[in-house]
Amino acid sequence: MPDYKAPLRDMTFVREEMLGFPALWQRLPGCEEVTEDLVAAIYEAVGTFCEEELAPLWRVGDEEGCTWSEAGVQTPTGFKAAYDKFVAGGWPSLTGPVEFGGQGMPPSLENVLNELVGSANWAWSMYPFLTKGARLTIASHGTEAQKNTYLEKMISGQWTGTMCLTEPHCGTDLGMLRTKAEPNADGTYNITGTKIFISSGEHDMVENIAHIVLARLPDAPPGTKGISLFIVPKQLPDANGAAGERNGVSCGSIEHKMGIHGNATAVLNFDEAQGTILGEPNRGLYAMFTFMNVARIGTAIQGVAHSELAKQGAIRYARDRLQSRSLSGPKNPDGPADAIIVHPDVRRMLLTTKAFAEGGRMLIHYLAYEVDISTLSEDSAEQKAAEDMLALMTPIAKAFCTETGFESASEGVQVFGGHGYIREWGMEQNLRDARIATLYEGTTGIQSLDLLGRKVLGTRGKLLDPFIDRIKGFCKENKRNKDVSAFIKPLSEVVSEWDKLTRSIGLRALKNRDEVGAASVDYMMLSGYVTLAYLWAMAAEVAGRKLAEGAGDESFYKAKIQTATFYYAKILPRTRGLLATIGAGSESLMAMDEADFLIE
Amino acid sequence: MPDYKAPLRDMTFVREEMLGFPALWQRLPGCEEVTEDLVAAIYEAVGTFCEEELAPLWRVGDEEGCTWSEAGVQTPTGFKAAYDKFVAGGWPSLTGPVEFGGQGMPPSLENVLNELVGSANWAWSMYPFLTKGARLTIASHGTEAQKNTYLEKMISGQWTGTMCLTEPHCGTDLGMLRTKAEPNADGTYNITGTKIFISSGEHDMVENIAHIVLARLPDAPPGTKGISLFIVPKQLPDANGAAGERNGVSCGSIEHKMGIHGNATAVLNFDEAQGTILGEPNRGLYAMFTFMNVARIGTAIQGVAHSELAKQGAIRYARDRLQSRSLSGPKNPDGPADAIIVHPDVRRMLLTTKAFAEGGRMLIHYLAYEVDISTLSEDSAEQKAAEDMLALMTPIAKAFCTETGFESASEGVQVFGGHGYIREWGMEQNLRDARIATLYEGTTGIQSLDLLGRKVLGTRGKLLDPFIDRIKGFCKENKRNKDVSAFIKPLSEVVSEWDKLTRSIGLRALKNRDEVGAASVDYMMLSGYVTLAYLWAMAAEVAGRKLAEGAGDESFYKAKIQTATFYYAKILPRTRGLLATIGAGSESLMAMDEADFLIE
Repeated sequence: MPDYKAPLRDMTFVREEMLGFPALWQRLPGCEEVTEDLVAAIYEAVGTFCEEELAPLWRVGDEEGCTWSEAGVQTPTGFKAAYDKFVAGGWPSLTGPVEFGGQGMPPSLENVLNELVGSANWAWSMYPFLTKGARLTIASHGTEAQKNTYLEKMISGQWTGTMCLTEPHCGTDLGMLRTKAEPNADGTYNITGTKIFISSGEHDMVENIAHIVLARLPDAPPGTKGISLFIVPKQLPDANGAAGERNGVSCGSIEHKMGIHGNATAVLNFDEAQGTILGEPNRGLYAMFTFMNVARIGTAIQGVAHSELAKQGAIRYARDRLQSRSLSGPKNPDGPADAIIVHPDVRRMLLTTKAFAEGGRMLIHYLAYEVDISTLSEDSAEQKAAEDMLALMTPIAKAFCTETGFESASEGVQVFGGHGYIREWGMEQNLRDARIATLYEGTTGIQSLDLLGRKVLGTRGKLLDPFIDRIKGFCKENKRNKDVSAFIKPLSEVVSEWDKLTRSIGLRALKNRDEVGAASVDYMMLSGYVTLAYLWAMAAEVAGRKLAEGAGDESFYKAKIQTATFYYAKILPRTRGLLATIGAGSESLMAMDEADFLIE
Repeated sequence: MPDYKAPLRDMTFVREEMLGFPALWQRLPGCEEVTEDLVAAIYEAVGTFCEEELAPLWRVGDEEGCTWSEAGVQTPTGFKAAYDKFVAGGWPSLTGPVEFGGQGMPPSLENVLNELVGSANWAWSMYPFLTKGARLTIASHGTEAQKNTYLEKMISGQWTGTMCLTEPHCGTDLGMLRTKAEPNADGTYNITGTKIFISSGEHDMVENIAHIVLARLPDAPPGTKGISLFIVPKQLPDANGAAGERNGVSCGSIEHKMGIHGNATAVLNFDEAQGTILGEPNRGLYAMFTFMNVARIGTAIQGVAHSELAKQGAIRYARDRLQSRSLSGPKNPDGPADAIIVHPDVRRMLLTTKAFAEGGRMLIHYLAYEVDISTLSEDSAEQKAAEDMLALMTPIAKAFCTETGFESASEGVQVFGGHGYIREWGMEQNLRDARIATLYEGTTGIQSLDLLGRKVLGTRGKLLDPFIDRIKGFCKENKRNKDVSAFIKPLSEVVSEWDKLTRSIGLRALKNRDEVGAASVDYMMLSGYVTLAYLWAMAAEVAGRKLAEGAGDESFYKAKIQTATFYYAKILPRTRGLLATIGAGSESLMAMDEADFLIE
C-alpha cells in the first residue's frame, strides 16, 4: 500500500507563490483575518489527519466494502471513528457561514483542502463532500425554516447529505425522470419513486441524512421544465429539530462496483416519503445546478487525487526497485542492478503523473480563486467575470482532470510491472477508484458538450475570449523573460490554434449540429492541454523568479521548471493529433448505419 | 453480462478474402488438405463451444476466483467441466504434430482460433494456452525422452504446462534470478527456489503440470548467460509415463489480483524438486524465447479479445439505451428519447473499439500467416523472411494490441455511463481483465525496447525495410484505385515519416543511448498506428473489390470501408503527436535529479 504524504510544499507554492491567495483574501470582505500563517497551519493539521487517520483506512475500505442489511448499511471498520474525529476537529464547518455555526473561512479553502482528504481516502471523503453540496444547495435555495432545520447540523457534520438524481432508466437525460411528489395539505410533499447510484446514500456514520431529490409535481410539464427539487430527510426532524421518526425512504440494496468500495452507492426507494420543496416548483434543475457545479469541481479534485497517489507510489517504487542497467551505463555499479528510475521510459511515466498531479492542482487552485471572488467580492463586474470564468473552466476541470487522473493511475500501475496488478500494492485500487470519475457527475461526453456547445459556442465566445486574452497577455508580458522564453512560442501558437479552431467549429456547426458532438471530447481535451500549458508556464515563471532571487529550495524550483519542460516536450504535442481529428469533422462518425456497427 | 458472439463473418473476411490463407495452405507441405470448408467448420464448432460453454463461466470465474488450500488450488465452478469438454472435443491437439497424437493442422489456425476462446473467457483460456507454449518449447529443445514423456499428454490436454521465470526480486531482469539447479548422479537436477506470478501454476483441472523453469547451475556464469532451462513436473512420471509420486514443488499461495480471477497466479516453491534440463546448459534464455514469442503473440490476442468484448457489449447497449435526443433532431420521435448510438461522441467510442478489435484481428492474422510460412515452408529464403517479419512484428502486436485493448475496454465502460462501473454488466470486468496484458510477458516498455533497440536499430533497418517496402508497394499498386485513393496519400506520408524518423533516432542514439529508451514506447505506438493504417487500407481495398463484383453482403463491406475511413480520420492523426514527442528527444526526461521527482 502506498504511503500517502500530504504535498504541503507544493500546495504552498501554488497558493501563495504562484496565485497569491493571501493577497486576494486581504481585499475580500470577511477574509481580512485569513493570513497565510493561519491557512498553512490548517493545511498542516488536515494533512496530518489525512496521513494518520484516513490513509490507513483506504485499503480497509476496499477490502471490506459496505455491508447492506434490512437494518441499513454498515461502513467499513474504522470509517465511523475517523468521521467522528473529523467532526470533533471541526473540519466540516471550516467554510460554513458563522450564523449556522461555521467558521466563515473563504470557500476556496475547502476546494483545495479536499484534495488532501480525497487523496488519502476517496471513498471515505464522499460522505462529507456530498454533505457540502447538499448544504450549499439548501443555503442558496432554501427557506429560512429549511435553513434553520438543516444547516447547522450539516455544517457541524452531525447530519450528512446526498444528491438524488439518477433513476434506472435515466441518468444523463433527467427530463425522463418519474419520481413523483404529491402535495399534502400541510405544505409538505409525499415523494414516491426509485433513485439509483446514490453515493453515500445510506450508512451508519451519522443519525440523519438529508436527501436532495429531483421529482415531478402532479401538474408538471414534461421534460426538464417539469422537475422540482425536494429535501427528504431519512429521519423526520422532531419538534426540537432532532432526528425523529423514520421517513418513508429505505435503501433497497447497494451496488457492487469496480472500486470506491468504501462508499455506499445506494438504491433508494421513496415510498410516500415526506419532503419539503427546495426553491421554486418546476425550477428544480436550476436549483440542482448549485449542487452539480460543486460536485463537478469536487470530481475534478478526485482526478488530481488519483494522479497524486499514482505519482507518490510510482516514484517511491521506481527509486527502490532494482532491475536492469541504464542503457547509458550502470548508475549503481556496486548494486546488482540500477533503480528503474534511471530508465527514460520509466521517467516518462513518472513525469506524466507528476505533470498531471501538479498541473491539476494548479487548475483546481485557479478555479478556487475564482470561487472566492464570485462568492465574496462586492465588485459586481469582478464577480460576474469570476462566475463566467468558472462556468467555462468547470467542465474542463471536471473532464480533463478525471481523464488524466485515470491515465496517471494506469501509468502508476505500469511502473510497478506485474506487481502493479496485485492488490497489496494499492496501485490497482487507485486505478479502480479512478475509473468512476469520468462517469459520474456528468460523463466526459456531457462535460464536453457543456463546454463546447453551451459555454463556448452558445455564448459566441464570450466566456472563452477573456481566458484566451489572459493567456495572450501572459505571453506578451513574458516575451523577453528568459526563464520561460522556451514556453512562450509554443504556448502562443497553441492558444491561437485553439481560438481559430473554435471559430471554425462554430461555422461548421451552423450547418450541421452533429459537428459539435463530433468535436466535443477532443475539443475539451485540447482545452485542457492548453490550460495546463498556461499554468505550467506560469509555474516556471514563478520558479525562475524565486531561483533568481535566491529564495532557497533550489531543488524544488528547478524540478518545477524541468516538469514544465517535460510537459511542453512530451504532453502538449498531443494537441497536434487533436487538432487533426477535430478538423476531420463528423462525417466519418455519422456515415455508418446503426445496424452495420455489429452484424451478427 | 455481455453475450459473446463469435465474430465468424469477420474472421472469414480476414482469413479468406483479405489474406488468402487457403491458397497459402495449398502450397505448404502437409497442409494440402486444409481447405476453407474444413477450416470454416472448425471455426463454427469452436465458436459454438465458446459461446455456450466458456462465455457463461466468465462472470463465475471473476466472482468466485480460485481458492487456495494446503491441498492445492480449486478453480471456479464449471472450469474443470468445461476443460474436460474442451479436451474431449480434441481442441488442444488441433495443431500438434501427428506423431504425438496431434491433428497436424497449420499453426496459424490455433493463433487465430485462440481469439475466440480468449474473448469468451480469458482467465480460463490461459490454462490451455500456457500448455501450448510449454509443449512447443519441449518440442523445439527437448530430447527424445522428454518429448516421449511429455508431448502426447500435453497435446491431448491431459497435462498442462507453465512458464516459470519471475522471482520476487526479478521480473524483467532475469539475469538476477537465483533459483538453483543441482545436478544429481542420474542426470536429473534438484531445483530449489521461489517463482512468483506463475499463471495457471497450480489447479485442479488435470492430473499433472509440467513446469518449464529457469534456474542456475552451480558453476553458471553470472547474468543472463548463466541461466538454464528445466522441465519440472508437479508429479514425477512413473515407469509407465503416468503421473506418479508428488515432486518437491508446492504452491505457497495465489495472488489477489485486479482481474483474471479465474486463473490461479501461483507462488511456486521448488524444494529440491526433480527436473531434467531442457536444451543446452546456460542457454536457457535462448530456449525460453520459443515460449516467450508464443506467449507474446498470445498476449497480443488477449488485447484483441478485450477490444472485441468491449465492442460487442457497447454497441448492443448503445442501440438499446434511450437517453436524450440527437443534436440534429429526434431520430426516434415516437419514443421517450433516442438510442444513444445517434450521438456522434458515442459513435466515436464505438468505432474506436471496432477499429481496434477488427484491426487487431487483421494484425494477428497477418502474423499467423508468417507463422505458417516460417514453420512449414521448405523455401529457406521465404522462411527466413517470414521469421524476420515475425521478429519485427511480434513486439508491435504484443504492445500495441494490449494498449489498444485496454483503451477499448475503457471506452466500453464509458459508453455504459455509470452502469459501466457496476459489476453485473461485465464491462468493468473486461477492463480489469485487460489491465494485465500490458504488464506480463514483457511490459509495453520492454516490447518497445525490443522493437526499437534490438529489431529496428540493432539490425540497421534490415527487419523494418521489407515491411516498409510492402506498404510502399501497396500504395503504388493502388494509386489509381478509387476505392482506396483517399487512404493512399496519408498512408504514403506516414510511412515515409516513420522511415525518416527511424533514421533520425538511429543517428541520435549513436551519441546517446538514452535516446532509444526515450523514444521507445512512442515509437512502438507509432509503428502500431502505421501498421493498422496499412491493414485497414488493405481491408478497404478488398471490400471495395467485393462491392464492385456484386458479391453480396453489402452492409458488411460498406461498414469495412466506413471503419477504415473512421480510422484514418480519427485514429491515425494520433501519429502527429507521437512524431512530435519522439522528435523532442530524451533531454526533458533525463534532466531531473532522482531526488527531485518527489520532495518529501
